[in-house]
Amino acid sequence: MTEGPNANHFLSIRSQVEPFHAMDVLASANQMQKNGAEIDFLCVGQPAAQAPLAARRAAAELMENGAIGYTDAAGRRDLRERLAVHMLDTYNVTVDADRVFITTGSSAGFTLAFLSLFDVGDRVAIAAPGYPAYRNILKSLGLEVIEIETHGEDRWAVTPHQVTQVHREKPLAGILIASPANPTGTMMTPKALHELIDCCEDLGVRFISDEIYHGLTYAEATGVEEATALQYSDKVIVINSFSKYYCMTGWRVGWMILPQDCVRSVERLSQSLYISAPEMSQVAAMHALDCQRELEQVRLSYLANRQLLLEELPKIGFEKILPIDGAFYAYADATRHTNDTMEFARQMLDQAHVAVTPGLDFDQGRGHRYLRFSFAGDTKTMKSALQRMKDWLT
Amino acid sequence: MTEGPNANHFLSIRSQVEPFHAMDVLASANQMQKNGAEIDFLCVGQPAAQAPLAARRAAAELMENGAIGYTDAAGRRDLRERLAVHMLDTYNVTVDADRVFITTGSSAGFTLAFLSLFDVGDRVAIAAPGYPAYRNILKSLGLEVIEIETHGEDRWAVTPHQVTQVHREKPLAGILIASPANPTGTMMTPKALHELIDCCEDLGVRFISDEIYHGLTYAEATGVEEATALQYSDKVIVINSFSKYYCMTGWRVGWMILPQDCVRSVERLSQSLYISAPEMSQVAAMHALDCQRELEQVRLSYLANRQLLLEELPKIGFEKILPIDGAFYAYADATRHTNDTMEFARQMLDQAHVAVTPGLDFDQGRGHRYLRFSFAGDTKTMKSALQRMKDWLT
Repeated sequence: MTEGPNANHFLSIRSQVEPFHAMDVLASANQMQKNGAEIDFLCVGQPAAQAPLAARRAAAELMENGAIGYTDAAGRRDLRERLAVHMLDTYNVTVDADRVFITTGSSAGFTLAFLSLFDVGDRVAIAAPGYPAYRNILKSLGLEVIEIETHGEDRWAVTPHQVTQVHREKPLAGILIASPANPTGTMMTPKALHELIDCCEDLGVRFISDEIYHGLTYAEATGVEEATALQYSDKVIVINSFSKYYCMTGWRVGWMILPQDCVRSVERLSQSLYISAPEMSQVAAMHALDCQRELEQVRLSYLANRQLLLEELPKIGFEKILPIDGAFYAYADATRHTNDTMEFARQMLDQAHVAVTPGLDFDQGRGHRYLRFSFAGDTKTMKSALQRMKDWLT
Repeated sequence: MTEGPNANHFLSIRSQVEPFHAMDVLASANQMQKNGAEIDFLCVGQPAAQAPLAARRAAAELMENGAIGYTDAAGRRDLRERLAVHMLDTYNVTVDADRVFITTGSSAGFTLAFLSLFDVGDRVAIAAPGYPAYRNILKSLGLEVIEIETHGEDRWAVTPHQVTQVHREKPLAGILIASPANPTGTMMTPKALHELIDCCEDLGVRFISDEIYHGLTYAEATGVEEATALQYSDKVIVINSFSKYYCMTGWRVGWMILPQDCVRSVERLSQSLYISAPEMSQVAAMHALDCQRELEQVRLSYLANRQLLLEELPKIGFEKILPIDGAFYAYADATRHTNDTMEFARQMLDQAHVAVTPGLDFDQGRGHRYLRFSFAGDTKTMKSALQRMKDWLT
């Protein structure tokens, strides 16, 4: 808090974080829709599909006839054990259930990981472009954010060379990497991930792996296989969530896999900062893990949307799209049309009724040239949006 | 993070917060119950009653037939507007719905209030005894915690004189006060609250009012009326929750009333740190606000439990109990039996199968002489526990 004779008029400096421009676009789009306009929403990273039927039924049953209360800070034991099995089934890695920690969405996972590993003033690296909440959470917790710009020649991945250079200037305490990434959807190859983790361990830099888009990958189209950081080290923190693949955004439930030395400190922090994740969401999540068939249908709809955007976006002037290995985003260079995508997105919403996200949320240096198109909606919406953009641009 | 040649083996200093001893007692009690013992639980601040029927039904209906997603960071507009009406109905204070902010339980409220008001190194005062999460959250966010010991002659309230003295030594940035308080259940009189707020405003100390136990007060027995900090100032932050009065602990939903100057900064922080509170809990909360009759029955059961403990605890050696004006706790001096309530509680659980909370969670200086008995359970449990403690102590 800035000191002064009457501090009631002051706020903290750290609360002055950037807003999500995506949220402002969404708010405008929602307002227009309320006023009767038909908007195509390609701006939010939220599946159009609802949570699997069995998950919703189990939660509804609990509400009608069961008891809901605080759980252990680490979450319900049954879900933790089920997730240990999930890790074995999915990646063939063995994880003790004691290392599985249920969180109130991946949002809580980030805060708990940062607080348990880093003290005020520590330097933590993230990739640009990247998810803007990383930067805001880190800053608000008193950490110094080091943004490392990624490039096409490195397949949009942070490289061991870059980390080593940054670390030599002044030591890094940690690094957070997402693969598939938001806003790009681009993945690191298993080899690149392995090498980066090895490099960080050699340097003594803590590695946090955001795997929230796992499951939403398109190896049949790209050849890029999904790998968890746990395949290469048991010292990393892995953060995941039921929001994306399991279509459970509003349920606020996720999980972490912790290295053994973090288990108790994360537990203690969580007891005070969160108490526990919502119990009905934990119960629903248990069931969601058994709904692979239903969720595969959802993934296939994204695969179709992806193909459509990759074919059609270049025809209307968005030629350069970053590799979409996973997630549900097309991150495209818009320089053919504008050098100010913030204003461009505003006009496209107003005039064409298509809501997309300007790149400035994700990359403060280069984002003014990019737009993110989310294809988490249904295919009909994608087709409508493409037609409208075409009409508007020509 | 402590620096070193291989930082992988180090955790942050700030993660080394105290555990909740209440949670450890609970874990032991749960384990004993699993092994077949019948335990009387007087250790957790969690209502035995479930959320009101209409709230559970509404959420179940949403899960079966509705859509659940991210809401605005500030929460669903309908709930925010309904809470503005609730504030008018309950306290006769007028609050614009824009100042109502829905949180993921009061836990999120504390973190957002602290981050929006205070920067690293700022000094924030709390009362001892008090809720231990305050201390842990403040510390983990890089704030200096100033504990002010309360005393019987001040009716266990922090006084303007104390705040002024502490502030003169070195300026305070803020203070957090709960009334009714945990673990004591003691309330500030409206007059005392008013004077403390005036004092803080004069000094330029931000005032945060934790009103999570509002609704659970026993004016018919005590004569102490409930007052919200908003009756005396619109510069305070009020934090509340559906966990206690509305019996919705595991749902993780609460709310804040913000001063106008905090609205945008709390919104931006929340977008990054929480995204939004669980949507089904927000929908259920809407309905819970209309279930006063059902909830009044729950309150009357606490009133009966309270009377029972006030009559019976002194007969078994716990003569000095702090004034129970509200909440569902009896905080009692145990010096007749022990000077180490941590060990005493452990033995009582082992031998008498009654789980209570040692005072050290709440007061590091004097807590070793106190025990907290939660009467949020049913009356049968209270009677059984009293009989068991009597048999064990005599």
